[in-house]
Amino acid sequence: MSGAPRKAAIIGGGVIGGGWAARFLLAGWDVAVFDPDPQTPRKIGEVLDNARAALPALSDLPMPTEGHLTFADSIAGAVAGAAYVQESVSERIALKHRVYAEIQETAPDAPLGSSTSGYRPSVLQEEAATPASIFVAHPFNPVYLLPLVELVPSPATAPQVIETAKGILHEIGMFPLHVRKEIDAHIADRLLEAVWREALWLVRDGVATTEEIDDAIRMGFGLRWAQMGLFETYRIAGGEAGMRHFLGQFGPCLQEPWTRLMDVPEYDDALVDLIAGQSDAQSGHHSIRELERIRDRNLVGFLRVLKENGWGAGRVIADHDARRARTEE
Amino acid sequence: MSGAPRKAAIIGGGVIGGGWAARFLLAGWDVAVFDPDPQTPRKIGEVLDNARAALPALSDLPMPTEGHLTFADSIAGAVAGAAYVQESVSERIALKHRVYAEIQETAPDAPLGSSTSGYRPSVLQEEAATPASIFVAHPFNPVYLLPLVELVPSPATAPQVIETAKGILHEIGMFPLHVRKEIDAHIADRLLEAVWREALWLVRDGVATTEEIDDAIRMGFGLRWAQMGLFETYRIAGGEAGMRHFLGQFGPCLQEPWTRLMDVPEYDDALVDLIAGQSDAQSGHHSIRELERIRDRNLVGFLRVLKENGWGAGRVIADHDARRARTEE
Repeated sequence: MSGAPRKAAIIGGGVIGGGWAARFLLAGWDVAVFDPDPQTPRKIGEVLDNARAALPALSDLPMPTEGHLTFADSIAGAVAGAAYVQESVSERIALKHRVYAEIQETAPDAPLGSSTSGYRPSVLQEEAATPASIFVAHPFNPVYLLPLVELVPSPATAPQVIETAKGILHEIGMFPLHVRKEIDAHIADRLLEAVWREALWLVRDGVATTEEIDDAIRMGFGLRWAQMGLFETYRIAGGEAGMRHFLGQFGPCLQEPWTRLMDVPEYDDALVDLIAGQSDAQSGHHSIRELERIRDRNLVGFLRVLKENGWGAGRVIADHDARRARTEE
Repeated sequence: MSGAPRKAAIIGGGVIGGGWAARFLLAGWDVAVFDPDPQTPRKIGEVLDNARAALPALSDLPMPTEGHLTFADSIAGAVAGAAYVQESVSERIALKHRVYAEIQETAPDAPLGSSTSGYRPSVLQEEAATPASIFVAHPFNPVYLLPLVELVPSPATAPQVIETAKGILHEIGMFPLHVRKEIDAHIADRLLEAVWREALWLVRDGVATTEEIDDAIRMGFGLRWAQMGLFETYRIAGGEAGMRHFLGQFGPCLQEPWTRLMDVPEYDDALVDLIAGQSDAQSGHHSIRELERIRDRNLVGFLRVLKENGWGAGRVIADHDARRARTEE
């Protein structure tokens, strides 16, 4: 990449906004963050420390020169001159609409991605001055390591904006998954929400603790999902007889009482206390900071394995290295 | 372990039975397999080849001398003298009951684990001559690599049988998760079934293809789940404010229309055709055998990373090495 660094504006400086800031900075972009919370510089600094300790281990090339980080004291100041704007404020639609109005007063044409996990892009675009620039770009924590971004346009989003966003997300090492049909919670969080509801029932009904549920995931199917996901894993399970055979065997289970998903558990104080208490018993001997570092060390290891094997998320990293090598030639 | 090798009987020689056979053989046990399918020796041989190529890479110690594999021509012949019996026949309860009757005629006191993913142990025990010996021992494919076994007794299972089974499962390198309350589909498959239903809706409604759903998993949260599972990941997401803060934020989503789990998709030929066709387009350029080897290479890499980091499934492997080293001293 030649020429002056481009600028990304990060609106909302929590753990997700901080992850975006780290992605852009370590890819050589300048970053301006706006968040009224006076703790923001400290919080962003901590995410950035984690990212600097983890991300470079994934690449076989020297990292680009890190971009320049500034903290703006207004949205207008953050987005002025930005080639990309990412919004990661709280999941309150009225707040998001107010923020978009301010952003688009200064930067109406900048691609404006939202980190929302739940809202459809057409809901985000309501009342907007320039709906064509707005889309969902939903990342996954830690944003500086996990490649997935769900990229969701509405019919009102300009196709050229999505193409530009894809190019930028590739450039900062991510995997934009173009979701062709907008839907509440997109794809991944619908799957997560399904598991979450069932897990709440299991805890509430006293079948399992939070630790037992985590072990049931990470000692078994979690390891499969980190590389192949759901359908490719089941394709293998069908064995020589193939996917159709597997589908024939598994289909009848749909009629069995194997989930309690038909209704939603009452999310009362007793359930919150139960889960928070079990989680403390399970993980309270590690600080959140320690857990982050353990997680990142594991993720870097997994991603390096996948890169060596030319598979899954590792292919995203290898492709990113290859693009960088070509650009710098 | 000193003395003559002990014998495990494997009833049902499909991909799961084959994985059990490999676990026991590579841990030094003699194994007798019974399955009326004449293809069984070939099928077991292929699983065993995969296991021999993968499992030894996890241990820092030389592997024990492999046990002796035989194919019995009757259930009685397979279970005679067995210290452990594992049943992995089709998920048809009448068949399982017939098989248990035959097993217990010859070996009434041997611990008898079932690989069932759905049935509760008390359903398995109905009509049995010795219900006290019967329990669920539900493994995950590939059985020779993934440590998880859901170990589920009913009130009629003898506690001593469960203790014996735990010891044996530890000895062959597995992680027995003692499920304290029996429930259809135990723990992991309830979570899997929840995701499966939602994924079927997403495919049926044309929101995403099988490949897009797999990417939404393996480029993002699948990588988190391979090491920490659901609750510990969310504990981190709560950040400095902790689990209670996270629970407060995520709770209201339960009332949102984020899943279609309230009803079950009609599982007709059109849906099966759609999924099987998309799966062919996604993965049809690899044979099942190739996919197995890719999967195993990835899993071995992940498990080695976790072992180096002393975390999750890697701790199971490290502990197993330590126990073996002590036993062989």
